Amino acid sequence: MTTYTAPVKDMQFILHEMLDVSTSGIPGYDELEADFTSAVLEEAGKIASEVMHPLNATGDQEGCTLENGVVRTPTGFKAAFDQVREGGWTALDCDPEYGGQGMPYVLNTAVNEMFSSSNMAFNMYAGLTHGAYSAIHAHGSDEQKAKYLPKMVSCEWTGTMNLTEPHCGTDLGLMRTKAEPQGDGSYKVSGQKIFISAGENDLSDNIIHLVLAKIPGGPDGIKGVSLFIVPKFIVNENGTPGERNGVSVGNIEKKMGIHGNATCVMNYDEATGWLLGEEHKGMRAMFTMMNEARMGVGLQGYAQAEIAYQNAVSYAHDRLQGRDVTGVKNPDGPADPLIVHPDIRRTLMDQRSFAEGARAFTMWGASMIDRAHRSEDKDADGLISLLTPVVKGFLTDQGFNMCVAAQQVYGGHGYIEEHGMSQFTRDARITQIYEGANGVQALDLVGRKLAQDGGKHVMAFFDLVKSFIKENSDNEALNDGFLEPLKAASKDLQAAAMYFMQNGMKNPNHALAGSTDFMHLFGHVCLGLIWSQMGKAAMGALEKGAADADFYTNKIKTGRYYMARQLPATKMHLARIESGADPVMDLAPGAF
Amino acid sequence: MTTYTAPVKDMQFILHEMLDVSTSGIPGYDELEADFTSAVLEEAGKIASEVMHPLNATGDQEGCTLENGVVRTPTGFKAAFDQVREGGWTALDCDPEYGGQGMPYVLNTAVNEMFSSSNMAFNMYAGLTHGAYSAIHAHGSDEQKAKYLPKMVSCEWTGTMNLTEPHCGTDLGLMRTKAEPQGDGSYKVSGQKIFISAGENDLSDNIIHLVLAKIPGGPDGIKGVSLFIVPKFIVNENGTPGERNGVSVGNIEKKMGIHGNATCVMNYDEATGWLLGEEHKGMRAMFTMMNEARMGVGLQGYAQAEIAYQNAVSYAHDRLQGRDVTGVKNPDGPADPLIVHPDIRRTLMDQRSFAEGARAFTMWGASMIDRAHRSEDKDADGLISLLTPVVKGFLTDQGFNMCVAAQQVYGGHGYIEEHGMSQFTRDARITQIYEGANGVQALDLVGRKLAQDGGKHVMAFFDLVKSFIKENSDNEALNDGFLEPLKAASKDLQAAAMYFMQNGMKNPNHALAGSTDFMHLFGHVCLGLIWSQMGKAAMGALEKGAADADFYTNKIKTGRYYMARQLPATKMHLARIESGADPVMDLAPGAF
Repeated sequence: MTTYTAPVKDMQFILHEMLDVSTSGIPGYDELEADFTSAVLEEAGKIASEVMHPLNATGDQEGCTLENGVVRTPTGFKAAFDQVREGGWTALDCDPEYGGQGMPYVLNTAVNEMFSSSNMAFNMYAGLTHGAYSAIHAHGSDEQKAKYLPKMVSCEWTGTMNLTEPHCGTDLGLMRTKAEPQGDGSYKVSGQKIFISAGENDLSDNIIHLVLAKIPGGPDGIKGVSLFIVPKFIVNENGTPGERNGVSVGNIEKKMGIHGNATCVMNYDEATGWLLGEEHKGMRAMFTMMNEARMGVGLQGYAQAEIAYQNAVSYAHDRLQGRDVTGVKNPDGPADPLIVHPDIRRTLMDQRSFAEGARAFTMWGASMIDRAHRSEDKDADGLISLLTPVVKGFLTDQGFNMCVAAQQVYGGHGYIEEHGMSQFTRDARITQIYEGANGVQALDLVGRKLAQDGGKHVMAFFDLVKSFIKENSDNEALNDGFLEPLKAASKDLQAAAMYFMQNGMKNPNHALAGSTDFMHLFGHVCLGLIWSQMGKAAMGALEKGAADADFYTNKIKTGRYYMARQLPATKMHLARIESGADPVMDLAPGAF
Repeated sequence: MTTYTAPVKDMQFILHEMLDVSTSGIPGYDELEADFTSAVLEEAGKIASEVMHPLNATGDQEGCTLENGVVRTPTGFKAAFDQVREGGWTALDCDPEYGGQGMPYVLNTAVNEMFSSSNMAFNMYAGLTHGAYSAIHAHGSDEQKAKYLPKMVSCEWTGTMNLTEPHCGTDLGLMRTKAEPQGDGSYKVSGQKIFISAGENDLSDNIIHLVLAKIPGGPDGIKGVSLFIVPKFIVNENGTPGERNGVSVGNIEKKMGIHGNATCVMNYDEATGWLLGEEHKGMRAMFTMMNEARMGVGLQGYAQAEIAYQNAVSYAHDRLQGRDVTGVKNPDGPADPLIVHPDIRRTLMDQRSFAEGARAFTMWGASMIDRAHRSEDKDADGLISLLTPVVKGFLTDQGFNMCVAAQQVYGGHGYIEEHGMSQFTRDARITQIYEGANGVQALDLVGRKLAQDGGKHVMAFFDLVKSFIKENSDNEALNDGFLEPLKAASKDLQAAAMYFMQNGMKNPNHALAGSTDFMHLFGHVCLGLIWSQMGKAAMGALEKGAADADFYTNKIKTGRYYMARQLPATKMHLARIESGADPVMDLAPGAF
């Protein structure tokens, strides 16, 4: 019942008018001419709408099944997966040395949004593979890269990340999975891992599991964790999948959503594995995957909000209910469409201004990652490292809220599975949880990232805001509704950071008790800045007399909405933060 | 996997220390001695924990089935339903003339919370019956009352509300169901109704459907709607169920939650019905049910938050993950329990302070309803009529958010259905939608209730806050963290009301665009007032040297948390409201 239209025009606006990619000086970005990206995005949009989205609801209803150790993905997934990988879509930003197309990450991000919006559960099979690819690419030996990467780039083989165990998720130092060295460079890996997305499937010829485990005799806790490559089928000398390894699926979970993706309990029973990267440095290698995964999960959050919004708009146009109090709008019909009602308009504007802002923020973040990797720009790397928890935590919390809001537009019909709005909410819910629950993102932000490199990166962020405001202080149009709210929100963020500095030394709980509020405050300021940048770009286009003036005018109006209606949240978050740890911690654990 | 413990002590505190029911002068409240209410609540709590809750997860997994027109409720529902009604629980506040126990509504509300927390889908069968009972009790003829009420009080027969049709939910004026007079006082009712909770079931011997329909030739739109009693089996002269009526179930919906309750498509095919109340005055009669239902749905919202909170607390105690940054708390274990972490504590305090505040607010509201009904107090009636949309809209939006927050405490395990936290979220979701979606509640509040009787009731509410602050201005303990935030929040509410008055005249959209924010702002002020009242009662008990000082101290701490961490939301809502309709309405419908 739901439909999906890829927001190609909006992505083109972000790439070429806001980020101005082809003149940005980032290596490889000169390829990103408007015609080229338009062609790629149009084509990806078709795959998303026509191949992936039709399998979204059926995948949810049918789910995955486990029979005799074999996972069957929903009907149609295999054919669609083949079509996607044969079209080269899984290789877009991969290293040409291993069969990739070498495109910038920013373009891959745009495509990934489309694929996530249209069918999140389906897209995760390729998404996890990409994460595993990145870890092997960054930390593998030449031999390992040659052996695994080409097949993973083409998604003939898929990949997984194995971190969580039944008794430990966030606190991986408690891990029990063991890896015994065999003296020939291989290890015997034994233990149980849970919540392994895409852990087993019938889409690929082999599955390359990346598994965290402890080598006996190593340091205690997190410092004794190493990362291993454990293929489902041990790869023969000639590169074909050979002997079945000692890894099997114990169970697949019944979940609230993403039914189309098999979430597996994986049992490793003396499975043969090979060390990826250095002994006991497993977390470092895993973080390569996790940072990418966290950006990707933030993207999933707003991607679900985007498709939910599109369908809410369509329902609000079609459903006739009540009359516009300021005057009948549909005199020939029995009632006016929902969209005339101010409270419906408010919620649609919330959704729209969030999804567009989040998209631009994420694509800007992706361009920072490209800058960091392609120019070895340490400042860009530091900035995006600071913002990764904001992308993950803020965009998924808000993304989920917006799915709920879009579902609400449908009234009672939103609660009926047949209409598809419930699925967006249920699928989006996982994004707040996996790859580090959002509370852990907030802890990472406040407890680690803020102070990283002496607080240099957060200062760089404040400078970014400050110089944008200063540079544009004469811009009358931007002064109308953009610069003042941005300034005020940014002041709130600085006040919150100052509160942490002054009080967190005495008692770290003064900072930690405000961590989630800080993450949201930060997110709003980021979107405030991004909306101001988009507003400026749109105003520039109008001044130049660009065609399709409506597009730019609507962009500015949507931005003004965000500034007027969403940024006031920063005051609330600051007040909560400044109330400190006492109200939070006063009640003793035993009193709960 | 989940458990439920009835909050008897907290309810006793509200009844006897905050509301001081037995000296309140409300007729019938003298019966509510502490020993008596304690005995009732303890017993109800046992039913909730031991009879209802064990069927909550199984009811969700199994759901209802429709076979050959017969709905089967989940295994165990019938036996439990019989036990509940034989125990007299469905008759608690019903009229003794028809077999009820005549207890005040406030006591029924407390029991209803327990039943809703422990198994919402199950409790709806009795809940809908109670609503239909109330409508017949208020609008039926003596003969109708004698015929239907005794069996509905005992729940031998259940009841339903039939409003929605496929093309109309909120806008009931579009209704197509017809009722043709037969000249003998009966009507032939024909049409299709959807989303009929408990529309068909195997728990009862008869089902008394209350159905809105149009008598041909009557006024157009909502003014031509009448209410009819349409029993599943036409009742014989001797009071037994007789001939099967022309009503049948077309389908049962697959929903996001409340799987244990059958949501039916009901087909009326020349079914025999009798007018309830006056011709064309059906909405008035229906509102009797709807106001009660709206209070009941608000209650469901926080009742789900309560049980979700209880289970989140239990997980936070048991799950060992990470270490307290201020010092190890569980040195003998591999890690500290989740509850040591400030961000976990923050979310638990959010949940706790909401659930306790919402409970007291709802029970206070129930006492207003008792006052209105039992003393024919028009002011109490006006006040609770004003606050009904706040109870419904605010408590369900926040209740849902708190279920999501409780689910989040479980990390990945919260997403797995087996742990039961997903069900609370999925079940709570409907409370924001049914009995008038929350946007419609906000519209009712701002568009109708605010100005009712010349704004008298909202002024009375402001007076209530003002006089509480004034009366207690010398109370030092209450000045510590309660009175100032309450004053500030109340000022924000007044400013918002003032904004609507000054701008809504020019353009009603200036008010309507802020309606949802206003409803939330109002809700926070209500909970701020209620928390201040509870704080005062707890301080009074401590001064008198009451036993269990910890209970009162924790109550005060929880209240201070709400005031410090939740009330700052009023500033955000006010800023959004004061930005007016322009940002909301600027984008033309065609631009979406």
